[in-house]
Amino acid sequence: MKLLNQHASFSGWQRFYRHDSTIIGLPMRFGLFVPETGNLSNVPLLVCLAGLSCNEETFASKAVAQAYASQAKIALLFPDTSPRGANIPGESESWEFGGGAGFYLDATEPPWSSFYKMESYIVKELIPIVVAEFGLGRSFVGITGHSMGGHGALTLAFKYPRIFGSVSAFAPICSAMRSPWGRHALPRYLGGNEQAWRRADACELLTSTGVRFPDGILIDQGMADEYVHSQLKPELLEEACRIAGQSVTLRRHERFDHSYYFVSTFVADHVSWHAKAAGR
Amino acid sequence: MKLLNQHASFSGWQRFYRHDSTIIGLPMRFGLFVPETGNLSNVPLLVCLAGLSCNEETFASKAVAQAYASQAKIALLFPDTSPRGANIPGESESWEFGGGAGFYLDATEPPWSSFYKMESYIVKELIPIVVAEFGLGRSFVGITGHSMGGHGALTLAFKYPRIFGSVSAFAPICSAMRSPWGRHALPRYLGGNEQAWRRADACELLTSTGVRFPDGILIDQGMADEYVHSQLKPELLEEACRIAGQSVTLRRHERFDHSYYFVSTFVADHVSWHAKAAGR
Repeated sequence: MKLLNQHASFSGWQRFYRHDSTIIGLPMRFGLFVPETGNLSNVPLLVCLAGLSCNEETFASKAVAQAYASQAKIALLFPDTSPRGANIPGESESWEFGGGAGFYLDATEPPWSSFYKMESYIVKELIPIVVAEFGLGRSFVGITGHSMGGHGALTLAFKYPRIFGSVSAFAPICSAMRSPWGRHALPRYLGGNEQAWRRADACELLTSTGVRFPDGILIDQGMADEYVHSQLKPELLEEACRIAGQSVTLRRHERFDHSYYFVSTFVADHVSWHAKAAGR
Repeated sequence: MKLLNQHASFSGWQRFYRHDSTIIGLPMRFGLFVPETGNLSNVPLLVCLAGLSCNEETFASKAVAQAYASQAKIALLFPDTSPRGANIPGESESWEFGGGAGFYLDATEPPWSSFYKMESYIVKELIPIVVAEFGLGRSFVGITGHSMGGHGALTLAFKYPRIFGSVSAFAPICSAMRSPWGRHALPRYLGGNEQAWRRADACELLTSTGVRFPDGILIDQGMADEYVHSQLKPELLEEACRIAGQSVTLRRHERFDHSYYFVSTFVADHVSWHAKAAGR
């Protein structure tokens, strides 16, 4: 694991690393914010997943969650949004699929299945490395994300409730199967059988897994978001939570769009939400 | 003046505009954050100047000053860092000069003198337009900036004390004449006579103009900044302030570098500084 650069940020450090991922089979980059604190082994870890076309720097540089993580003394982990440099034909043709658009799932369809395993990478490799190397997250791991990253946060939380103690999202793709972005990506990554897509759909997981987060889920959604009706569909998540008996705090904000100006406005509440779940 | 896009941000709006600049003779873009408030004519305006290679979006998207401007009810103006599209040979060859590197001065040397008039553009055109169109800054205008933008803030404040009621800077180029960046740019923009360079040098203006800001100047400087000794030289500004009898709060921060992770950490203090000067 190589430290690429580090920046003092509030009372902690924003660092960027590169490491050779065994699961993906390529070098991967990630960002890590570590608050100033004595004993890192008690520091909760909040995984922050970015959206389509973003990378490990986007959430770290534009949301300024470090301001609040610094106060709450929690660490922030910023994974990349896809493998890089797989050189699969068609990988760079669209911002909605391939590079920058890994959808936080494990592809089963060739040629994507050779490298596109962001789900296992984050859950089985990156988080364990951060826990082992730094002790961060040993006591608690939460997960949040924006847009495709919100889809990632919800799907990973409901698939791995023993890893994630809390989940929130900003403008998530609530049902990838019922989103044009997802209907473009899912068959390419997972093949034509819609049954397989259900394991990459937050609403389907909510109603099928039996997993519940007893302290609820926090979702913020801007109602001036250009994708709210076409791609994100928060009403589907609301309905799935109702059916599943999952308590959810879904806040609709009239004026807000899909940008990081929206994320930065509400990120303090998300950091507080996860810090409280972690007992901070 | 054309509204390009707008984003709700905290309790206000971050907007981006394009207009045809009479002084520059080309279309220019700028960002404007307007807090939610009843009467805009009482809202102070803080001009935020970005550094080399940046544009009107950089300070707006990475510092998250909107969080604090929203609370203090002050507006933020984000000019671009140079003319765009002048198509002067050599304009795009270096990130230290030409496009993205206007140095907030009026070039007198051809061919740059045809377009590169960022000083007059900001002071005589952009600020008056914002005051006239929106009423913002009618009561008070402050100025801050980062790196080359810090140089811009200091030089413009000391040249136009009737316009600017307060000045602060993040890691400013304190003496452009004694900085390799400035020694590259100043002769190209202003010709070979060093006397002309003195009007584009913060330290020289401090000791020659007789202008004082009685409430002092706020400067933040990271001591892990890769440019602090080679380009920025805060000790020169400290000495110039001592000679001039200008009170200055120069805070040296051991761990911090030149990035927006540094700016975002301390921007709350700068917004408070200017808000206080404006009587907020």
